[in-house]
Amino acid sequence: MAKFRTIWESEDKYVEVIDQRRLPHEFVVVKLNTYKDAETAIKDMTVRGAPLIGATAAYGIYLAVREMKEKNLEPSFITQAFEDLKASRPTAVNLFWALGKMEVALKEETNDLVAHSLNAAREIVEEDVETCRLIGVHGLPIIEEIAKRKQGEVVNILTHCNAGMLGCVEWGTITSPIYQAIEKGIKVHVWVDETRPRNQGSNLTCYELTKHNVNHTLIVDNAGGHLMQHGLVDMVIVGTDRTTRNGDVANKIGTYLKALAAKDNNIPFYVALPSTTLDMSIRNGLTEIPIEERNQDEVRYMIGKGKNGEIEPVLICPETTPASNYGFDVTPARLVTKIITERGVCDASEEGLVGLFPEFG
Amino acid sequence: MAKFRTIWESEDKYVEVIDQRRLPHEFVVVKLNTYKDAETAIKDMTVRGAPLIGATAAYGIYLAVREMKEKNLEPSFITQAFEDLKASRPTAVNLFWALGKMEVALKEETNDLVAHSLNAAREIVEEDVETCRLIGVHGLPIIEEIAKRKQGEVVNILTHCNAGMLGCVEWGTITSPIYQAIEKGIKVHVWVDETRPRNQGSNLTCYELTKHNVNHTLIVDNAGGHLMQHGLVDMVIVGTDRTTRNGDVANKIGTYLKALAAKDNNIPFYVALPSTTLDMSIRNGLTEIPIEERNQDEVRYMIGKGKNGEIEPVLICPETTPASNYGFDVTPARLVTKIITERGVCDASEEGLVGLFPEFG
Repeated sequence: MAKFRTIWESEDKYVEVIDQRRLPHEFVVVKLNTYKDAETAIKDMTVRGAPLIGATAAYGIYLAVREMKEKNLEPSFITQAFEDLKASRPTAVNLFWALGKMEVALKEETNDLVAHSLNAAREIVEEDVETCRLIGVHGLPIIEEIAKRKQGEVVNILTHCNAGMLGCVEWGTITSPIYQAIEKGIKVHVWVDETRPRNQGSNLTCYELTKHNVNHTLIVDNAGGHLMQHGLVDMVIVGTDRTTRNGDVANKIGTYLKALAAKDNNIPFYVALPSTTLDMSIRNGLTEIPIEERNQDEVRYMIGKGKNGEIEPVLICPETTPASNYGFDVTPARLVTKIITERGVCDASEEGLVGLFPEFG
Repeated sequence: MAKFRTIWESEDKYVEVIDQRRLPHEFVVVKLNTYKDAETAIKDMTVRGAPLIGATAAYGIYLAVREMKEKNLEPSFITQAFEDLKASRPTAVNLFWALGKMEVALKEETNDLVAHSLNAAREIVEEDVETCRLIGVHGLPIIEEIAKRKQGEVVNILTHCNAGMLGCVEWGTITSPIYQAIEKGIKVHVWVDETRPRNQGSNLTCYELTKHNVNHTLIVDNAGGHLMQHGLVDMVIVGTDRTTRNGDVANKIGTYLKALAAKDNNIPFYVALPSTTLDMSIRNGLTEIPIEERNQDEVRYMIGKGKNGEIEPVLICPETTPASNYGFDVTPARLVTKIITERGVCDASEEGLVGLFPEFG
């Protein structure tokens, strides 16, 4: 189904990614020839989304190994690459996970370290693809069930932010069940929350749904409650940055408001996640998950394409007005209908999560 | 307290208004010399907000009377003025109310119809000022009570859209208790919802709070739930376009989501309204209030000040992505703590409303 990937190898076995900062207005491919290029791509948000950051870092290590061999550099070059890539986005869990896997791989015996490191990076990439595919396999029956109940009428799905393929390698998390439902001929329409302040909904989710010919409509973040009150939403599905042992879900700011509206209107609210985003060391999301505060200019300005065709910010408030910019909020487990993972669907609770992932018991 | 009005008479007794489409970036005064100028100002949204539209229309009739006398025109000129002004914003309740009052006034005996019509327009304007002032008088004790409970610490008030003086003549509805609390020395901080898609929060509420030196912070519409979960909001107060006999409140899209979050966090949710916005002929807001659907480009584009200093729209989604744009939503009475009117504070219910307004019994 997915018509492209977010990261791939060029013919000369370097790495290419999409410059996501230019989406949806321009599709610009950036070639990564060195680990420093990979580091920059992560740092300046050319790539974003935890799984894609992990994949980029893994390929970054491969590029470092290749450069070391080609230029006959000291092994300390690799140590430096690990350090630089680790520091490129300090809070991204998948980054450390991917670099850890690469570290283990580089310690294995091999007579071709370049090919070996390339294979290790490919494995990380394919693991993400498979994880997302499986989330779709387990989420698909939920959409099928609604389509059946509606006797084949369009299933209306509301989502917030981008938990699509653009943050991963292929499929995405919340988009995987949607893409698989469409492959099966189910009629789906997606309400896409704009997702202020950074507009990942209007910029990225709308972009990838457009590319995959998925019927969708952009709405402001304010609109979801009204749509739910009027029977225009059959299910809500969102991603997560971090989910606790109790099933509390940290996700893009505004998710909690949609969960409240879903509850108030008896609409099921699903969270799709790869198990790498589970944080089984904490229980209470509201008190234990620190919420990042970001630059206030993301709120004071809006970025888009002006009439001159340039992508630029416009100021939307008085020059002197201060803004506050919390990146995430926490949706308590009580508002989550089910969690969809690569191993299956479970309740948003310790029992539910440990039932699917006994290794966290 | 209010440092300026939104409509006033020039020295030569014509009428002046603020071009609200330029706020907050530019303060441009527009002079209305004829009723046609008043009609245009309403039509093109130079002025907006039900009470201000009513006041502009009333002055428009005065300008028509004056022009008729000065140019010795037929009385049919006045009939035409009433027709044109009535059609300038077909859904604004206050417009019809104000024009009805002017119609009655023009039928009264007088030897100076120009002065008489000017006085009638002034009465309509002063009635709005007094209504808003009284909403403040009745809302003030609510803020005082919170300040007392917090032992003089800052009272944090969240609001959505603009129900401030810019939509009225002076004071505003939700801003009246706030301005009066500040006059009494109470420390107030206002969280201002941006209010996509038209950004009345960031454009207008932030502007008037800045002009009145009220401590405020702009937030995206997604942020309120998180702030409430973390004890950063003491009360929510919003305006309304139409409130039913049962206390269901139609207001700017997104209001319902804030009401849900307030309920979930035991934070009081107030609606401030002049009784002219009560619609005692209907009960169920969800089924009986038609919700206006507006141009989708308000969602697809965002208007602000670009780096060249020009106020312009920027596109925030793919060229082909469609958008949906519902203007209002309905907050069920069960989520409203109290309604604040010019006659006092009451429950959001028929008993509450008829208790204060027995003429609607």
